[in-house]
Amino acid sequence: MTPPVIVLVRPQLGENIGKAARAMLNFGLTEMRLVAPRDGWPNPSAGPAASGADVVLENAQVFDTSAEAVADCAHVFATTVRKRGVTKPVLTPEAAARDIRSAPGRTAILFGAERSGLDTEDVALARAIVTVPINPEFGSLNLAQAVILLAYEWSKGADLVQPPATEALPPAPQEELEGLIAHFETLLEPTGYFAPPERIPATKRTLRGVLTKPGWNSLEVRTLRGVLSALGRR
Amino acid sequence: MTPPVIVLVRPQLGENIGKAARAMLNFGLTEMRLVAPRDGWPNPSAGPAASGADVVLENAQVFDTSAEAVADCAHVFATTVRKRGVTKPVLTPEAAARDIRSAPGRTAILFGAERSGLDTEDVALARAIVTVPINPEFGSLNLAQAVILLAYEWSKGADLVQPPATEALPPAPQEELEGLIAHFETLLEPTGYFAPPERIPATKRTLRGVLTKPGWNSLEVRTLRGVLSALGRR
Repeated sequence: MTPPVIVLVRPQLGENIGKAARAMLNFGLTEMRLVAPRDGWPNPSAGPAASGADVVLENAQVFDTSAEAVADCAHVFATTVRKRGVTKPVLTPEAAARDIRSAPGRTAILFGAERSGLDTEDVALARAIVTVPINPEFGSLNLAQAVILLAYEWSKGADLVQPPATEALPPAPQEELEGLIAHFETLLEPTGYFAPPERIPATKRTLRGVLTKPGWNSLEVRTLRGVLSALGRR
Repeated sequence: MTPPVIVLVRPQLGENIGKAARAMLNFGLTEMRLVAPRDGWPNPSAGPAASGADVVLENAQVFDTSAEAVADCAHVFATTVRKRGVTKPVLTPEAAARDIRSAPGRTAILFGAERSGLDTEDVALARAIVTVPINPEFGSLNLAQAVILLAYEWSKGADLVQPPATEALPPAPQEELEGLIAHFETLLEPTGYFAPPERIPATKRTLRGVLTKPGWNSLEVRTLRGVLSALGRR
């Protein structure tokens, strides 16, 4: 699974290039290409904004045109904020990431300049368009944000992502839960909690329901048994 | 489906509060709560960074403690960057967003301060932890980036998201494709392209494969028929 190449087309501010690098490296992407960066390259504003993602900036390659930047890529995606009058498939970041992960060969994702976005000619290089579905009343996604959403979606299928640890213990075996319920009942009986007699089954069912719902693990059940033992000593 | 409340706990820079507001509104979230913001509230640095998401800042509520900020919420999630020694379920943003969309009642998502993150006491308020799976060798997700990833995941199931338009026409009916293939063959036959005779079936199959693969739509097939007609006139 080859990570995609991130191509920034005519980026303006070095700071945004740095932020894009940071966004990339957070999700394991390292290959950045720059097409005609407005202020030249290297750009002293990029480093501080990269917050340590220097390796991405150091290896960034610069090209004169988008066509040259994607010449070695088998798949080209163009990100656009709004619909354009183009007859290409429009994908969500999620769908594009699935395509990228399953496609053999190298993929490039083109991102346009901060305000103007990609030119029609840049978009024409791409087989498909990626558009982030966004609040129709407030579409204000900046360059680094667009990059991070694509990188994040790609990383969902990448090896380097640590699956979140399921640190939670499983619920205690039913036997332990029964012991807890019995402990409650034993303590409650002398208090008159279950009276009147005809309500006892319903009240016990309610209590059982309350105690069953949390799915407490063995440690938690033991904690509660300790609480009950302490209360029983009063 | 109630949108989640975004709770920034002890945020330091007003600029980051503004960026978080912008990230929220991009994906349709409007309710921000601030717990003990370091520089007080309102903060003059927040507005410019919000890039127009002023409505989020104007309606932000301020609380002294995390517990007060989530008092009216039925579900509380705590975002943490790294694993902690807590025995709570750890969810990805995707899984948390699914939970939030399907849960009745209001949800709060807690985000910690820029450097220090959430305290153990803040995390103790939450039923589950949300951790963005990230490059283990470069974890540098800032506050606004964490907010945008959660907001983005939540928005996937929200009504307000515009589904990407499938502007692409469907592939042309097989009949039109056959017409195109026949047109190619008719033009190629006199050129000797298909010789020698014993190779004709294989060569035609190869050509058919090449022309079938793109899934051209009717307009595209028509364009190519025009190209062939022009070539035939040469």
